[in-house]
Amino acid sequence: MYREQIKVLDCTIRDGGLVNAHDFSVDFVRRVYQGVSAAGVDYFEIGYKNNAEFFPDAKFGPWKCCTDQDIRLATEGVENGAKVSVMVDVGRVNMDNIRPAAQSPYHMVRVASYVKGIDKAIAMANRFDELGYETTINIMAISRDAGLELDEAMDQCERESRVQVVYLVDSFGSLYQEDIERLVTRSRKWIRTKELGFHGHNNQQLAFSNTIESIMHGVNYLDATVYGMGRAAGNCTLELLLGFLKNPRYDVRPILDLISTDFIPLRERHEWGYIIPHMIAGQFNMHPQ
Amino acid sequence: MYREQIKVLDCTIRDGGLVNAHDFSVDFVRRVYQGVSAAGVDYFEIGYKNNAEFFPDAKFGPWKCCTDQDIRLATEGVENGAKVSVMVDVGRVNMDNIRPAAQSPYHMVRVASYVKGIDKAIAMANRFDELGYETTINIMAISRDAGLELDEAMDQCERESRVQVVYLVDSFGSLYQEDIERLVTRSRKWIRTKELGFHGHNNQQLAFSNTIESIMHGVNYLDATVYGMGRAAGNCTLELLLGFLKNPRYDVRPILDLISTDFIPLRERHEWGYIIPHMIAGQFNMHPQ
Repeated sequence: MYREQIKVLDCTIRDGGLVNAHDFSVDFVRRVYQGVSAAGVDYFEIGYKNNAEFFPDAKFGPWKCCTDQDIRLATEGVENGAKVSVMVDVGRVNMDNIRPAAQSPYHMVRVASYVKGIDKAIAMANRFDELGYETTINIMAISRDAGLELDEAMDQCERESRVQVVYLVDSFGSLYQEDIERLVTRSRKWIRTKELGFHGHNNQQLAFSNTIESIMHGVNYLDATVYGMGRAAGNCTLELLLGFLKNPRYDVRPILDLISTDFIPLRERHEWGYIIPHMIAGQFNMHPQ
Repeated sequence: MYREQIKVLDCTIRDGGLVNAHDFSVDFVRRVYQGVSAAGVDYFEIGYKNNAEFFPDAKFGPWKCCTDQDIRLATEGVENGAKVSVMVDVGRVNMDNIRPAAQSPYHMVRVASYVKGIDKAIAMANRFDELGYETTINIMAISRDAGLELDEAMDQCERESRVQVVYLVDSFGSLYQEDIERLVTRSRKWIRTKELGFHGHNNQQLAFSNTIESIMHGVNYLDATVYGMGRAAGNCTLELLLGFLKNPRYDVRPILDLISTDFIPLRERHEWGYIIPHMIAGQFNMHPQ
């Protein structure tokens, strides 16, 4: 499969951080950034850019509320580095701390939102747009909030936001490939001038095949993680996705090296993947918690 | 997905036997048979019915060359037992040892064959048919032997054999869902009066989604294994497949019990599943050996 418009976003550190309380060392993050960049991946999502003051009782490593300084330490000086992305949650960012894109070490901001928070997400994404960032809105739990309110949210994203991409997020890993076809076709009725993205979870071993299915129906922004690392059942694996995409700008070998040196040992300390309780949650369209 | 004609065949012991040299205890096989039967699965493939004299130097447990007595010990007396299937390899069965179906403890014989051995496979399947067995031919390595010789082999299966089912076997786990669509459509040109079956391998995490894809295009005989146990990357998992099939005669709970009591401990001693060397073999359309 080759289509020039396709962009791959690695979110290993961001979604994988949900497995280990975001407690990766700077060296580890830098190695992943180097590998992902050498593989030709388009974007590297380094963490959440929330503000720590909103999580007074939580314990976590630097990538849940990463500062510009954290990001610089992990990414500056890497040759041909992928564009850096951060994710933000509605209501958890102090916008006064955000510098214009031209002065910051990241390029893209992805606003994660449930359908019911879409107004706030659009306002927030538009603020980041004004500051010069590429922006996306990632609509979560799309298998659950699938009624008319989803059409309305997508219509609002199209008309009221200036994001480049609207992501469909199968948070529960419960969609089958025929659901993906229907969902993308439905989304295209509303999202006519922006790109669509897809983020899968692997509860039913369908994250990769659903990503392929989304590509077949015109989705161009694809999330994946090294060795599938991510919350609960994990995500579409980056190594499988790059192998499927016949684009010569991608090279899977640096990802295989990372798996060998870092992720197989990491998997022995932290669990993610095809695990029966997560499989059942996926089949019943429930959150992994 | 509900279609009355769909039949599920559990081949945990047969394909899983390739992981542990077929060395399951009779008690273990009997427990799996009980669970699979309680789940309403249609067929239970208990092993290979080859003859030990053809493997003079190999060491293996009873399920590589299982005798009628082995099969009876594991299956007799189980209430509402699934039909028992055995697999045979061309040239490795002493037909003089085979009793008529009415006097044997198994119901179905599946002849595994590469495209180049199809003449012998048809002759062998027809011998079993004469003895009163349900029969299938399972065409292996279908992603590799995919040229005109495959059309000819399928045409022969249709015209010269009396099997009920011709199985398409993605031995290398290298097919994507669009390949499945093409393959099934192509097969239907030749196999017009028999059912089609599909057996996937999970090298690229696509065994389950490819099985779904085959269903969507009219395949009715589906192979799966408990917890995906099978050679190398393993197979389509039975628990996911039963969850997808909305047929009330299937019940996934006995399979989940088996996973909890037997297969999670077994997986700690024997390796199968998403493992990088097998993933690479799948991407390059190569045998896992």
